[in-house]
Parts: sequence; structure tokens; C-alpha cells
Amino acid sequence: MIKVGIIGSTGYAGEELVRLLLQHKEVEIVWYGSRSYVDEKYASIFRNVCEIVPDICKSDDLETLAKEADVIFTATPQGYLAGVLNDNILANAKVIDLSADYRIKDVSIYEEWYKIEHKSPQYIPEAVYGLCEINRGKINKDTRLIANPGCYTTTSILTLYPLVKEGIIDPNSIIVDAKSGTTGAGRGAKVPNLYCEVNENIKAYGVLTHRHTPEIEEQLGYACDKDINIIFTPHLVPMNRGILVTAYANLAKDVDYDTVKAVYDKYYKDEKFIRVLDKDVCPETRYVQGSNYVDVNFKLDSRTNRIVAMGALDNVVKGAAGQAVQNMNIMFGLDEDEGLKQIPMCF
Amino acid sequence: MIKVGIIGSTGYAGEELVRLLLQHKEVEIVWYGSRSYVDEKYASIFRNVCEIVPDICKSDDLETLAKEADVIFTATPQGYLAGVLNDNILANAKVIDLSADYRIKDVSIYEEWYKIEHKSPQYIPEAVYGLCEINRGKINKDTRLIANPGCYTTTSILTLYPLVKEGIIDPNSIIVDAKSGTTGAGRGAKVPNLYCEVNENIKAYGVLTHRHTPEIEEQLGYACDKDINIIFTPHLVPMNRGILVTAYANLAKDVDYDTVKAVYDKYYKDEKFIRVLDKDVCPETRYVQGSNYVDVNFKLDSRTNRIVAMGALDNVVKGAAGQAVQNMNIMFGLDEDEGLKQIPMCF
Amino acid sequence: MIKVGIIGSTGYAGEELVRLLLQHKEVEIVWYGSRSYVDEKYASIFRNVCEIVPDICKSDDLETLAKEADVIFTATPQGYLAGVLNDNILANAKVIDLSADYRIKDVSIYEEWYKIEHKSPQYIPEAVYGLCEINRGKINKDTRLIANPGCYTTTSILTLYPLVKEGIIDPNSIIVDAKSGTTGAGRGAKVPNLYCEVNENIKAYGVLTHRHTPEIEEQLGYACDKDINIIFTPHLVPMNRGILVTAYANLAKDVDYDTVKAVYDKYYKDEKFIRVLDKDVCPETRYVQGSNYVDVNFKLDSRTNRIVAMGALDNVVKGAAGQAVQNMNIMFGLDEDEGLKQIPMCF
Amino acid sequence: MIKVGIIGSTGYAGEELVRLLLQHKEVEIVWYGSRSYVDEKYASIFRNVCEIVPDICKSDDLETLAKEADVIFTATPQGYLAGVLNDNILANAKVIDLSADYRIKDVSIYEEWYKIEHKSPQYIPEAVYGLCEINRGKINKDTRLIANPGCYTTTSILTLYPLVKEGIIDPNSIIVDAKSGTTGAGRGAKVPNLYCEVNENIKAYGVLTHRHTPEIEEQLGYACDKDINIIFTPHLVPMNRGILVTAYANLAKDVDYDTVKAVYDKYYKDEKFIRVLDKDVCPETRYVQGSNYVDVNFKLDSRTNRIVAMGALDNVVKGAAGQAVQNMNIMFGLDEDEGLKQIPMCF
Repeated sequence: MIKVGIIGSTGYAGEELVRLLLQHKEVEIVWYGSRSYVDEKYASIFRNVCEIVPDICKSDDLETLAKEADVIFTATPQGYLAGVLNDNILANAKVIDLSADYRIKDVSIYEEWYKIEHKSPQYIPEAVYGLCEINRGKINKDTRLIANPGCYTTTSILTLYPLVKEGIIDPNSIIVDAKSGTTGAGRGAKVPNLYCEVNENIKAYGVLTHRHTPEIEEQLGYACDKDINIIFTPHLVPMNRGILVTAYANLAKDVDYDTVKAVYDKYYKDEKFIRVLDKDVCPETRYVQGSNYVDVNFKLDSRTNRIVAMGALDNVVKGAAGQAVQNMNIMFGLDEDEGLKQIPMCF
Repeated sequence: MIKVGIIGSTGYAGEELVRLLLQHKEVEIVWYGSRSYVDEKYASIFRNVCEIVPDICKSDDLETLAKEADVIFTATPQGYLAGVLNDNILANAKVIDLSADYRIKDVSIYEEWYKIEHKSPQYIPEAVYGLCEINRGKINKDTRLIANPGCYTTTSILTLYPLVKEGIIDPNSIIVDAKSGTTGAGRGAKVPNLYCEVNENIKAYGVLTHRHTPEIEEQLGYACDKDINIIFTPHLVPMNRGILVTAYANLAKDVDYDTVKAVYDKYYKDEKFIRVLDKDVCPETRYVQGSNYVDVNFKLDSRTNRIVAMGALDNVVKGAAGQAVQNMNIMFGLDEDEGLKQIPMCF
Repeated sequence: MIKVGIIGSTGYAGEELVRLLLQHKEVEIVWYGSRSYVDEKYASIFRNVCEIVPDICKSDDLETLAKEADVIFTATPQGYLAGVLNDNILANAKVIDLSADYRIKDVSIYEEWYKIEHKSPQYIPEAVYGLCEINRGKINKDTRLIANPGCYTTTSILTLYPLVKEGIIDPNSIIVDAKSGTTGAGRGAKVPNLYCEVNENIKAYGVLTHRHTPEIEEQLGYACDKDINIIFTPHLVPMNRGILVTAYANLAKDVDYDTVKAVYDKYYKDEKFIRVLDKDVCPETRYVQGSNYVDVNFKLDSRTNRIVAMGALDNVVKGAAGQAVQNMNIMFGLDEDEGLKQIPMCF
Repeated sequence: MIKVGIIGSTGYAGEELVRLLLQHKEVEIVWYGSRSYVDEKYASIFRNVCEIVPDICKSDDLETLAKEADVIFTATPQGYLAGVLNDNILANAKVIDLSADYRIKDVSIYEEWYKIEHKSPQYIPEAVYGLCEINRGKINKDTRLIANPGCYTTTSILTLYPLVKEGIIDPNSIIVDAKSGTTGAGRGAKVPNLYCEVNENIKAYGVLTHRHTPEIEEQLGYACDKDINIIFTPHLVPMNRGILVTAYANLAKDVDYDTVKAVYDKYYKDEKFIRVLDKDVCPETRYVQGSNYVDVNFKLDSRTNRIVAMGALDNVVKGAAGQAVQNMNIMFGLDEDEGLKQIPMCF
């Protein structure tokens, strides 16, 4: 059994790690870390695991944990892991970081968008950007540090990657209009996240300044081998889970449906977790709810010579905890879908 | 592998049977029955199973299905199964009926509350009322017909059973105030079930006339060995899943917390799917969402000499499809929780 | 024009006072009080009044305000007003208190249920309990202090008052099962009120300990002229507004529908804001949304000799701000519905 | 008093006409037309107007109605009015049509996008496109027929009009990503509009084929005096009311914030119902809920040389019934905001 510790286990991504790992055959959770609930029973906070998890929440002491665990998941605020990570920890346990600390290779871009000084840039080069379907080949038993991708980022990149990689679209024309459920806003006690502030409302936020923008740009830039600038607009939707991306771009080639479909199939046909939908069927977040699936599709507009590409996933699963487990599976040489076989719960 | 057929697979309970049975190791679904979608791809209706279920919907021909399946689940409107069930079918396959047709032993009560003539009352005596935790002993490999309990009924009975059985309360004083998610209203296209009619609203319905009333009365009557009359009031809540029962009754004995807790533990301590919560903790539907669990608890009111007993479950799982699978497991001698190990999804 | 000041204008009840008073012909709001947003533009907090309210939030300095206003609404936490109220204030301005400070005549009961020492019990005797339809006669131009009733209380009392007053039911058998929208939980930044904690869930809370219990008991006790004990159970519903009460009681007399209907009509037929619905029609919160209406109805159960009485209102209007404005109208001799003519917004 | 008849009064836009007109001082509703509920009490269908509206629903007999009413609102399915309108009707009453029948001047475009033969194209030329803020000057006491704009269209045009009119953007680069509440889907009993199908989900629909596309193109084409092609993508959001438009376009000029702000102010500063928000404040649908307001704003992106323009309104008010009343007010020479003074209900 792989011994697992979770730092930040009482946030939404943390809880979801618990839910998934409890259904994973090769794993034992040895540490439920939490800053706010130390010494409280985990099952008294998330009562869904009542009579299932007898553990008490422990502090977020990474050094001690590293000696007890084979792998540590950190579902912590930006800057936290960068401030505490050290060689000792990495020597003792693998780390899969669900925060943004090691996602962006250019530390100045990180510091510009996150308004935080990066405390341990020396670990950025070795961190693998854990977008499994694209970077699977870079992850193996020697990998020590995974930068687990952001939720908006995973949706945006997987929706657009084949188009960018194959030169179907002009990458600088990309506009990503994204809609997220409210778990994406985290479990902090803030007025804007209260029920009555979110319910019966839709709004854009972080327009032109959202921190997932440079992450999407960097990764799609690798795909087309150049620096690109895109527009990314997130919206808050009154629902718990799910991200829907509706992306727009100018076509760079004269293509028809079959050509573009073949491009998507080239990259995704054999991917268990990515489903390219039938012609004209639009992704809906409910059809991936609670699962690690990503549904994608596209439509071509001959009137404007543009493409509309769409993708949907569950932000706390494939957009966070599920992808983290998938990365762990790859690191440890397990079946990639171990612990991730949940059928989506569509209502 | 047990070959399973589902009649009514495109309603909410039907879909949930599919979701659960796809995660069951000993089962193969051989028939996706549907009246409305014959010859359509099942995964085009419930796209959560896209790339998972390749099957086409078939008609609801029970006779043919009985020859191909070991067990048939019927998630059909009231009166349907009673109208078509015959010896041939029962000779070929076990039947687990999610409708109310064989739940009530007194056919005149059934006909009075359901306003339907019962077409095959001859099968009522052999039908086992499949409330697993209470009637487990009556279900075995020879059982041919299970009357799977109603959703409100399961919640109400499991919440009150120990109190009635042990004479803690006056059963004729019972008032069940129940609140249900909207999947309970079914998937029929009716104006009152439209999003904008249900959202931002709560209402009682079927006050004093709801058809789960006699079912609760009959089963709790068995527990105290007399005929009883209760009040049952269902309410429609703007959420997809979940039933919460808040039940009230006069205490028949002078009891304290520990005594009543011991009574609950006597019946439920070893039950995997029933969780008696810690003192003062109230059940919430979200903590059982997507799972077969039932959470119960109670509070004693010395001011009025009454008890408030509460129970929560997921109406489409323990209140329908999950309990049906649990019944199947018992019938076939499998582990009772096979296919039912989902951790609740609490958001 | 009546000059109005609002203390606590940036909570949900406060905002609703603003919304209603802006539509009141005889009123001018001169003070938007707030503890959290002093010196901020009111319309930057509640942007629905953008370009309508140019005012800046002021502190909650009641003494100064009393000199500038004819009437002060206090939508403040329990204990606040009792701690600052004095003769000077009452000499200068009328006070309508939306908190519980002066609702309960027996100060020991207040202190027992609220766990707060009452700092100014000397004002309790003169405070009029502002349940307009029942206490209208006690409110006039000389009234200095109104204790505006609680939201659950208003719904519960108006639903049951005619039955208790006319001896139709045994008041000690009353059970009130209440369901509230989430504005009732206030606008404080607390984890249990976050969108993802409330959405897709229903729960009871404050079972047997909720502080509206003694308020209901006291007022219904006046109606039947004895001390009574009831059970009151509130539930949190995933919607913004609305309270639905489903109340149960034993019949004390042999009555039929027409008799009980006549009793309701006796008290409510001429009340603009109370609507006794047609036979068998159940109140729904959506049909009173945004308005000062209360919809009530009842059903008799000959099987158990009990009555089910139901009532629905909008907790922030008739359950708070609307009733406060109604009280102001009575105090100032205005038409009782001035500023309260909004047609309910049923979706 | 203006005598008003409503055809289609039992749909969502019809009910909203009733709600608004009941609060209009110069109007008397003389005809509640309905196809589905003839001879039923209007207040038994929409119980919010219980004890307010005593009327019975009448048939949709336009000829008879025209003799009894001064103005007729038709909130009917596409093609209905075009099939029955005639000179007699227009000679007797003004008609404000909330359907799309007379919105598009080029009948071939109407027939292409709506897949319906237009039965009375002879009335198209005289129909005034009732986007009040832009076409106010074309509406007067002699106007007989108003084509009331679509909900998505109103939001999209008002968000983009100043930018197109003043040549700030390249109109052919416009992408409108729109999000709508579910009242926009109508009150028809269809499975995709059931509560459990809409709740906890977001999806795009009608991608590249939605029928509001040519209406937006035609009207914005007038603003820049050329034929344009845009992309319009609607999404269904789990909420009752509201449309949010997030629009993207390439800048055609080198502009800064102040320049663009001045352009918006030029057209909207004196408009009561259009509010240009403060810098960096994003429109949210809740802040216009229940009212006739439109909130707009924009952000400039120097990285990509594009603009993000945003607009929010209530689809059943400014997007339907409210704008229809506004048009009536202009036609009859009344204050433009008569009956439309509701303060938005922000929760």
C-alpha cells in the first residue's frame, strides 16, 4: 500500500482527494492535514465519511509527514508550498502540488500574476507539469515533484491542444470564455461566496487579470512553439461543480468537420478520460460530474471563418484531485484509472 | 456474471440502476428497456455513460427479457408491472419491482390510495417487502419477487423503526414531515416540474393523501403489531437528490438520551448503511448524496414529552436503485454492499 | 416627508428596508448605517441601487441619528439595541427594532434562550410587539418603540392564531415544522452559509433550542390566555427567500372544513396582506416572493383528528423589513400598504 | 385608462406583463389570453396575483380583443401573430409583439433562420423595432405595430452599440458569449427544461444556429452601416432570470479607458434604464433582477488589442415584458418609466 498524506484536506479539493483515495485499492491515507481543524475528527467536518474515516486532523508539518508518507498531496494556498519545500522533504516523499507554485516555468511571470515572491524557484525546473494526457511521458518513478494543473487551465488546454498543436487555429486569436461552479472559489468564509450572493446570479470576474491566463498561454505556447497571448474570462455559475469552456479562435487553415475531428481523434481517441463527443453534441458539466472525464467538441463557422471549441470537466476531480490521483498512478506505475473509475453522476 | 435487465432505464431511478450496476463486479446489464427511446443509443440520452455503454434501448417486453436475464429491475409507473407479470416471467427471472405494485399486502388499501385496480393480486403474498435492514431474513435464493420500498417510506421507517419496535413512542402520535429533492417527482415532462417552477420555492403537496402513507403505516404497524394511523406530509425542495424526514411522536415511556441511543444501536450498530449520528448532530442530505447510506438521529424534548427523530438518505440510491441492488445482492448471496461502496459526494 | 434612518443597512433585512422605503412616497432615507462599510458608497455594496442611491454609509451612532430622523430602523444583532437605547434617543425618534431585544416580555426567558444579559429591560414594557394584524390597535402616533417580530414567528403565529384564539386546537399539541430560505441566516461570512455548503442540501438546525420558540409560545399564549409549550423545528432550504410553515395540532373540537374556514375568515378576510387560499391549495413561498403577503391554508385529518395548517411568507419582507414598514405606516397614520404594493415575483 | 389585452398571458413573459401592468397607473388589463387555460381563473395559475386578479383566462381571439383594447401585447410562439394579423386588428388596436415575427426586415433571413414561412410580410416595413433607447424617435402615437426585441438581442446590442456606432471596434470580429436564466427557455413542458436537467449544469446550445444571431447582426449593421457577421453563443444557466453577455471584439482604433467611457456616456448617460458601471466593476444579473435596468461595462486588453464588453439585464423585464411596457409608454406619450420603477431585487 502506498502511504499518502494530504495537506489541506479540509478544503474542497482536499475533501475530494479523500473521497477518491478512499476508493483507491493501492492507497492508505496516513495524514489528514489541516490548518483550521487540528485535533478535530475529520468525519465531524465532512460527515459524508462518518463511520468510514476515524482519523483526527493533524497539523501541516510537511517534514514529519514526509517521513511517514510515500507521497504528499498539497492542496494549499498559493505560496505555501514554495515557502516550506526543501531537499529533505523531497528526499523522503514524492510531492504532488495542487497549488500554482511550480506550474509556471518563468518565475517572473509567476511573481507578476500572483503578486507573491517565489521562495524556492530552484525546484521549478524539476517540477513536471502534470497534465497527464500531454505530459505523461515526463512522469515516472523518479519524478519527485508534480505541479498539478489548474482547473480552468486543464479545461482550456485539453479543449484547444489538438487545434494549436496541429496549426488549425491562430493561437493569438484564442478567446476562452469559461464558466465555473462555486467550489472553484474555495471554502474560505468570504461574503462574496455566501449562498445568497452566488445563487440566482452570474458574473464575470478577474477579467483580463485571472492567474490561470499565463498558465494556459505557457502550455499552449509549448504546443505551437511560440509565445502567445490569449484572452481568458472566468465566470461564476450558481452550481457546486463543473467547468465549461467555450473557446473561440480564427481558423489558420481551410478545414472541414472531418479534418478537425481527425485531429481531435489523433490525440484523444485512446485517452480513457477524454471523450470527443458526436457531431453537434455540446459538452455539459453534469455529464462529467463526480468523475475524471473531460468532454470536448467543436463547431466550425464558415460565416466568420472561426471555430468554437468546447470542453467540460469537474473542477474538483479532473480539475484538481482526480488529476492529482492520475498523476500519482503514473508516478507509481499503477493503472492510470485506479481509484478513478466513478461513473459520472448526471443529476 | 448475473445477467440483468432494466425496464424503465431512462427515468431517474433507471439511470441510477445503470450507474450503480456498471460499478458492480458480478453483473452484466443485458437490456436497457425504455418506452420512450426504443432504438436510441442509451448513451445519447444519459451522456454521462458516453463511451461506457454502447447499448441501444430496447422495448419493455418482459417475457422476452425474462429469458435473457437472471434478474429484472422494473422502474415503471404504478400498475404497469401488475398488469403484465405472469408465471412465465417469474419462472425465468427474478423480479425486483421499484414501483408500488406489490408493496402493500392489503389490496383494497392499494386500490383505495392508488385509484388503480390491481391486475395480479395473486403475486402479492409471495412478494417480499425489500427493506433490507428489517426484512433481510425473508430474502434468499428462492425469492422470486421483491417489492422495493418507496423513497419516503424507507426514510420514514428506518428513522422510526427502533422507537416503534421497542415501544418508546405512541405510534398513533407519529407525524412525519418529509422533504424531498426533485428527482423524486420523476422525469415526466410536466409544467410543475420545470426548473423555474421548482427553483426558489418550497411547498407541501399531497397533504394527507400521499400514497406512501399506507405503506409507512403498514410496515410500522408490523413493528408494533397493531394498526396505526399517522400523518405524512411531503414537501418539494429545490435540489436534485435527497430526502430528509423530521418525525415527531409522543414518548410512551420515561426515557433519557442513553436509553434511546441504545435502542437505535441495538438495531443499527452493525448495519453498514445506517449511521446513527453523534449526539445533537442533525442528518443532512448532502452527506449521503450519491450513496446507499441512511443517517439518523433524534432529540428528546422534556418540555413537551416528545421526541424529534430525523433521517436522511439519497432518494434515488437507498430510496430506489441502491436498495434494489442491495436486495439483489441478498437474493444472490453476494456481499450486501457489492456495487454500493460509493463514498457520498458531499458537494 | 418622514425622515428615516437605518442601522444595519448592509445586511439582508437592511437592504430590503432600503428597497421598500425607496418605493415609499412619504419617506426619505437620511442615514444608511453600517458597521462594516462606513464611508463606502452604499451603491457599491448593493449595486442594485446604483444611480439610485448616492449616499455614503455612516456609522451606527444612534444618538446623532435620533436628532436627524423621525424614525429609526435597527436591523442589528441581538443585544445591540438593548445596549445603546436610552431616553434621549426615544425622545427624539421612534424606533422600530428588527432584532429580538424587546420582543419577549419576560426578560428571564429572553436571557435564558438568547444567553445574553438584557441591558435595558426598562423599555420592554412599553415596546409594542409589532405583529400588525393582531396588535394594530396597540400602535399609534404615541408609540415610541416597536419590537418587530421574528420571521419564523410571524409565519407561525399568523398560520395558527385563529385556531388558537377560537379554541379549535389544543395549543400544547402544536408542532411547527418550518423551512427557511438562506437570507434568514444573515450576511455574515461563515463557512456553513457558503454557497457549496447550503446548495443541494436540506437540514434541520437549532432543534428544540431555536430562539423563536419562546416568542411563538408567548404570543400564542396570549391568544389562548395560558402558558403553552410547543415544538418548533427550523430547516435551511437552498433558496434565497421565503419561509414555509407546516404546523400540526390536535383538534380540540369536532369541526369541519367550513367551520374552520369561517374562523380563518373571521380574522383575515379584511386583511390585505393575509390571503386564505382556496380549499386544498397549499401555500408556496414563490407566490409571496418580494411582497408583504402571507398565504395560509389548512387541511383536516379525520383519520388522526388533527389539523395541518400551512403558511408562507417572504422572510425579508413580511418576516422583517416589510412588516417594519407596515408598523411605521400605522405609527404615522399612513395607509398601511404604502410602499408595500409590490406584486409578488413568482419566478 | 389604457385598455390592455395580453395574448399568451400564461407564459413567463405574459405573467411578467401582468405583474408590471398591475403596477402601472394608466392601464387596465381587460383580457388575459391563453391557449392552455381558457376559462380558468388566472390567479389559480399564477397564484402570486391571488386576491389581486379576479379575471378568467380568455381565448386568443385577436379580432374580438382588438375591439375591446387600445393595445394588445402578443407573447406568443414564433409565426403565430404573422398568421393572424390583419388590417382590421391594426385599425382597432396597437400591437406590441414579443415574438420575432416582425423583427427582421429581410423576410428571407427570417424564413431561413426560423424555418417558418412568413404569412404576413406586408406588415414588416411598418413595424418599428422597439429597442427604445436606440429607436425611441421612430415610435409615436401613430405607430401601430412594435416588434419588441429579443432578450439576447437587447443585451447584446445595448452592450455593443456605442462601440460599433463610433467605430471603436471591427464589427466583424464580434463574438457574443451569452448566458441566460431558464425562464428564457419558456414554460413549455419539455424534458430538457425539467428542474433536474437544468440544475447543477451549464451548457451551450444552438451554437452558431441561434435565431437571435441575424437580429443582432441586422441591428448592429445599421449602427455601422454595413452587413456584418458575428458569432453568438447562448448558454443555459441554472437560475430563473437574467442574461449576461460577455462580448469580445478587435479594437479598430487606438483608444484608452477614458475615450471608450466617453463613448458609452455619449449614448447612455441620460438613459434611465442603462447604467454604465464604474471602472473595473463587472455587471451581475442579480443587480438588475426584477427591473428594467441594463448594466454595462468594458475592459480594454492591451496585450491582445481587444475589448471585453459586458452587459446584464433581466430577460423577462428589459428583455421582454418591461421593454414592451416601455414601448407602450412611448407610443402613448406617457413617462417612459411609468410602471417600471421597481428597484432591482438583488437576492
